[in-house]
Amino acid sequence: MGSETPCSIHLLTPVVTEGLRTLDELDIFKSPGTQLTHSILRTGPPSIECEVDQALAVPGTIKQAIKAERNGASAVIIDCMGDPGLRPAREAVTIPVLGPAETSMHLAAMLGQKFCIVTVLESVRPMMMNNVRLYGVQEKLASIRVVDIPVLEIHQRGDEVQEALAGEALAAVEQDGADVIILGCTGFLGCADKIRKRLLVAKYDVPVIDPIPATFCMAEALVRSGLSHSKKAYPYFREKAFVGYEISRV
Amino acid sequence: MGSETPCSIHLLTPVVTEGLRTLDELDIFKSPGTQLTHSILRTGPPSIECEVDQALAVPGTIKQAIKAERNGASAVIIDCMGDPGLRPAREAVTIPVLGPAETSMHLAAMLGQKFCIVTVLESVRPMMMNNVRLYGVQEKLASIRVVDIPVLEIHQRGDEVQEALAGEALAAVEQDGADVIILGCTGFLGCADKIRKRLLVAKYDVPVIDPIPATFCMAEALVRSGLSHSKKAYPYFREKAFVGYEISRV
Amino acid sequence: MGSETPCSIHLLTPVVTEGLRTLDELDIFKSPGTQLTHSILRTGPPSIECEVDQALAVPGTIKQAIKAERNGASAVIIDCMGDPGLRPAREAVTIPVLGPAETSMHLAAMLGQKFCIVTVLESVRPMMMNNVRLYGVQEKLASIRVVDIPVLEIHQRGDEVQEALAGEALAAVEQDGADVIILGCTGFLGCADKIRKRLLVAKYDVPVIDPIPATFCMAEALVRSGLSHSKKAYPYFREKAFVGYEISRV
Amino acid sequence: MGSETPCSIHLLTPVVTEGLRTLDELDIFKSPGTQLTHSILRTGPPSIECEVDQALAVPGTIKQAIKAERNGASAVIIDCMGDPGLRPAREAVTIPVLGPAETSMHLAAMLGQKFCIVTVLESVRPMMMNNVRLYGVQEKLASIRVVDIPVLEIHQRGDEVQEALAGEALAAVEQDGADVIILGCTGFLGCADKIRKRLLVAKYDVPVIDPIPATFCMAEALVRSGLSHSKKAYPYFREKAFVGYEISRV
Amino acid sequence: MGSETPCSIHLLTPVVTEGLRTLDELDIFKSPGTQLTHSILRTGPPSIECEVDQALAVPGTIKQAIKAERNGASAVIIDCMGDPGLRPAREAVTIPVLGPAETSMHLAAMLGQKFCIVTVLESVRPMMMNNVRLYGVQEKLASIRVVDIPVLEIHQRGDEVQEALAGEALAAVEQDGADVIILGCTGFLGCADKIRKRLLVAKYDVPVIDPIPATFCMAEALVRSGLSHSKKAYPYFREKAFVGYEISRV
Amino acid sequence: MGSETPCSIHLLTPVVTEGLRTLDELDIFKSPGTQLTHSILRTGPPSIECEVDQALAVPGTIKQAIKAERNGASAVIIDCMGDPGLRPAREAVTIPVLGPAETSMHLAAMLGQKFCIVTVLESVRPMMMNNVRLYGVQEKLASIRVVDIPVLEIHQRGDEVQEALAGEALAAVEQDGADVIILGCTGFLGCADKIRKRLLVAKYDVPVIDPIPATFCMAEALVRSGLSHSKKAYPYFREKAFVGYEISRV
Repeated sequence: MGSETPCSIHLLTPVVTEGLRTLDELDIFKSPGTQLTHSILRTGPPSIECEVDQALAVPGTIKQAIKAERNGASAVIIDCMGDPGLRPAREAVTIPVLGPAETSMHLAAMLGQKFCIVTVLESVRPMMMNNVRLYGVQEKLASIRVVDIPVLEIHQRGDEVQEALAGEALAAVEQDGADVIILGCTGFLGCADKIRKRLLVAKYDVPVIDPIPATFCMAEALVRSGLSHSKKAYPYFREKAFVGYEISRV
Repeated sequence: MGSETPCSIHLLTPVVTEGLRTLDELDIFKSPGTQLTHSILRTGPPSIECEVDQALAVPGTIKQAIKAERNGASAVIIDCMGDPGLRPAREAVTIPVLGPAETSMHLAAMLGQKFCIVTVLESVRPMMMNNVRLYGVQEKLASIRVVDIPVLEIHQRGDEVQEALAGEALAAVEQDGADVIILGCTGFLGCADKIRKRLLVAKYDVPVIDPIPATFCMAEALVRSGLSHSKKAYPYFREKAFVGYEISRV
Repeated sequence: MGSETPCSIHLLTPVVTEGLRTLDELDIFKSPGTQLTHSILRTGPPSIECEVDQALAVPGTIKQAIKAERNGASAVIIDCMGDPGLRPAREAVTIPVLGPAETSMHLAAMLGQKFCIVTVLESVRPMMMNNVRLYGVQEKLASIRVVDIPVLEIHQRGDEVQEALAGEALAAVEQDGADVIILGCTGFLGCADKIRKRLLVAKYDVPVIDPIPATFCMAEALVRSGLSHSKKAYPYFREKAFVGYEISRV
Repeated sequence: MGSETPCSIHLLTPVVTEGLRTLDELDIFKSPGTQLTHSILRTGPPSIECEVDQALAVPGTIKQAIKAERNGASAVIIDCMGDPGLRPAREAVTIPVLGPAETSMHLAAMLGQKFCIVTVLESVRPMMMNNVRLYGVQEKLASIRVVDIPVLEIHQRGDEVQEALAGEALAAVEQDGADVIILGCTGFLGCADKIRKRLLVAKYDVPVIDPIPATFCMAEALVRSGLSHSKKAYPYFREKAFVGYEISRV
Repeated sequence: MGSETPCSIHLLTPVVTEGLRTLDELDIFKSPGTQLTHSILRTGPPSIECEVDQALAVPGTIKQAIKAERNGASAVIIDCMGDPGLRPAREAVTIPVLGPAETSMHLAAMLGQKFCIVTVLESVRPMMMNNVRLYGVQEKLASIRVVDIPVLEIHQRGDEVQEALAGEALAAVEQDGADVIILGCTGFLGCADKIRKRLLVAKYDVPVIDPIPATFCMAEALVRSGLSHSKKAYPYFREKAFVGYEISRV
Repeated sequence: MGSETPCSIHLLTPVVTEGLRTLDELDIFKSPGTQLTHSILRTGPPSIECEVDQALAVPGTIKQAIKAERNGASAVIIDCMGDPGLRPAREAVTIPVLGPAETSMHLAAMLGQKFCIVTVLESVRPMMMNNVRLYGVQEKLASIRVVDIPVLEIHQRGDEVQEALAGEALAAVEQDGADVIILGCTGFLGCADKIRKRLLVAKYDVPVIDPIPATFCMAEALVRSGLSHSKKAYPYFREKAFVGYEISRV
């Protein structure tokens, strides 16, 4: 705890696709002395766009979280706005495990009165809505909007993505009463500034939360203040003879 | 749809432990002509008592649900009060997929004003509470109580289980204002009658929902009335190159 | 309880108008061996379209429910989407009393995330909304929509009704985010299939709940699983010298 | 509207038992110039202690409300904490119709943060809870408590009633966090002062709402400010051939 | 308590601007014998249109409330729809302190199912929404709408104000499902009748609550029924050495 | 934004009492390079224990927040668990303004399922509960508990305070179902560790949030991620002729 503590954040991208995430993008958010490590899954889906994708990401996520803790991580961030495996991973480790959706929604609740999540596809909406319910922030939700672009096409359709995000963000502010925007996919990393500028042009000075940098800073905050999830809410799982999964804390 | 329809219910026990479930127990609830099939998982946990157990049950559950549909099942019941895999399994099949927790909670909401769930262990409480939130029935929840007996010890400690369940049910009625009791583990199958009698001795005429028979009857009801889950809420998952999981609808 | 139990469902149409309901329409939903009986009221309103109509239907409904139980019914279904007399009738009998509104709303909550009720007239909306509140399913309500056609004109304006229902259902899905449709009047019996087909043409695969068949199947499910309403929530009424009403359990 | 308006409040006691209510008790609350009239039912229950009693009070209540308006009443108060017939009576008249439960709950919500309703019998609790839901004040409810004394025994067991009410009120403040007390039966008229004094002895300075005087003053307030219920929420009922009930606005 | 009680209502306009409020406008609402006194602030804002304005009105409001009680007032009404100082003023006096926003919202909840507040400026919306949350009436809120006219321009732009209010009220009824309208600024005093007439022309018979007259009548009702705020919810503040504020109860 | 940004956090203690707060206590939480400045009020209360105290702290808080921003602060923390002036201060500045109550409640909501706030006096409970409502985290609140010790006696009664806090925290976990504890007064700074140890002795591994360090780390997180409150939710106040207050942004 405190300023002397060496802080090492592990970013866990819960898909099997290499190259989606590079750490350079996050460098500017680090405080001096904080380290950043990264992993992807060995088993799981290539991208997460529905409940099935999400379910298949969870066993690998638990495994990687245990490994990250063993390797000295101070905190783990699950790099997906569905927060796959957030709760079971917390049963598996002592260090804080953060989901960008949970973190962004609570941040948004602090920065305004009503937030909008702008995400990728219609198929993601029910999961997102369920997380809103689980996190207890329904009263602060203005709307969920989608740009209708699959996760794996975000990079190659960059300009179109930004355009669509800005359009939906503007509609959320003007039609749904939103006063905070959350980017609803971690693949949108880096888009916040342009959207915010577009909103400013329309005279709307509303924060646009880029989930991964925001969660990264929150992870540092938790580590520095010596806080982690409650072990009464997330007790350690009991070691059992799991068939087909090598998952153990010992 | 209707009385002519042959109805075949598949009971999917989402653990790898053999012998936990025998179908004889369910025979008395069948309407004439309904068939009952059963499977357990090839990969997964031996029992489900926390989020990690539950997470490891989901991939196998999705797989078995697809298989059950292919084999002609009219509906699938997930045989665990955590409803593991309920949402992703619905993305994978057309036939109704029922969770005993979701079904029992809505039934309880219809039969009284406040229900209590009496379940196995403290570690299950957060999952149960999260499902209450997801299913939107918080207003009808009186309390969640636990008997502190692990799932795999239920059978050998039968009398003790019944005693503990009756004690907690009575306390729920007298102290928490519950007017309906839900047995909070599918391993409690067959205990409802004795608990109900114990409550009647204390002059409390409250229903005790045994989740698997109740869900079984509800599955028949859905099949007969031609209803299944919304494909807008649970669209089919997109076929992808999942690594480590052979899951496909085609 | 169980498959041997002879099951006899009593459909109680809570109006004085003869000929509105014929049992043939329900035959296809029966499981083999289930019997269906029917009654209308001797005193009450000709149709139910507001709180006054509904209030005048309740005394007769209580009376008929008692009579149905005496005549051996296993369950009573109140044949109106206002669920008139649901709670007092439960105080008067031991067998399950089901309201199609309560049943359909809980079914809808299980099949999707947000349901729309499409009903007859604006004057019905407040009653419907009040029932949503009483049943505790507000979080699952997308909207209530009306076709603006009085109950007693439904039959003669059949095509227009179907057209209007389909139009409102489509609007509910596209504008209100509904993923399940509930027909909001028991007079719409038989319209579900056509509406569902119209929605499918527009690529929306959402369930359309026809309340009476669905409630009928649910009544069978309750009878077979041996469940009825809580007598703690609905204690037997005390015999009193009611003036103007011959209502007694003895 | 305003100070010149002659104001005539009609107190409608929705039971057939004579002598339960005398107007003298209300005289001290009248403002100069306000008149008070009274009626009981010709058909209905002798007292209201459950849903069946309440249902049988409603047709007579609608009738009397119409009659009161015809006779020049400025407002109608339904003299029962179940508010029987509140909504249908509003469909039948233009003048304000007030329920003491609805009025007291909203007053309580203004005077503190959490109110307790102390009422007669357990059988009344579900109705009371349902009204809390309908009126939208769940967040302000601390608890519902009962003294277990039937309505028709209140007068002869006066001291016992006061003792029991004071005891439950004290428990509500100390154990349930209540900071306002609502007397949960209009038969408790006149008990508020003694209970309030008992609470003051225990150093709790909390308001005790006596529903009928409070509702009487509120009725005057509505009349003087020219407000009545919304005709969009409570449209006039359509004249129909009701069988067994002579109810008509014309 | 009762009709003999001399009643003196103090209207506390929480701004420093003279001439905004004249008592003549309220005369028609008084019951015979009720007196009306008035004060404005010595320190504070010229008008209240945001949180800063509101915050600067509170110390003066507390002071004036104490003074009004010392001068014999029976009740205090804070003359601003932000209800500035409502809670601290209640800690400072024994007599009822009423806020027009709190009073109007609870009245509206009694008169219909969904209310709309039509107020002055966008900058007021968040405060208004926060009060809806504090008063626990979220479930009854249809919408908050604004006419975009500053408080101090209301008088000189009278016709435009009425036009805008009527337009927004109509839109609230037709688009947001509102069945009661609340004028969202005490500066709109006297506008209710014209708006109500405009709505009636469009066949919408919905109440339009003019907050100050309505609160005035409610204050009389509280005084006559002997009720004031709970001292458990609003205990007397402890005398302290406040720097810069001369506030004391003694 | 990012790691290069010099970060300067201003701690604004909203009382006039000198010496209550020393910055040394916060040094261990700082990340390298972050500066910490501090101020108290010139006008206001000596301590904050009720709504009146809180109201008198707000004008000074707004003023100091503006001054802090002018002096180059990157963020302002209001050093009181009532969050006095949080919303108006946000209208007055561009930099993030954080309240320890709002921050701690959202952090608690992320770390567990149900939190308890242990605070100083009963008189603080209603304000605390109102903030729970405003922040939209009611669903995550287990309970509010008090140790009954005035703010200005915390330091001299140190051991007693710790004992009382630990006792209430334990009761919250065992009786109220809390799994996270929030210290409900910023005067409790430094007590978290001992309470956490006491809970661990009783085998409860639950986080204890010390609001000021936690809010300090969160302020750094906001600054580093370039986020501040929404100007749509908190628009700049308009310059006006405030009487008695010299408050201006220009």
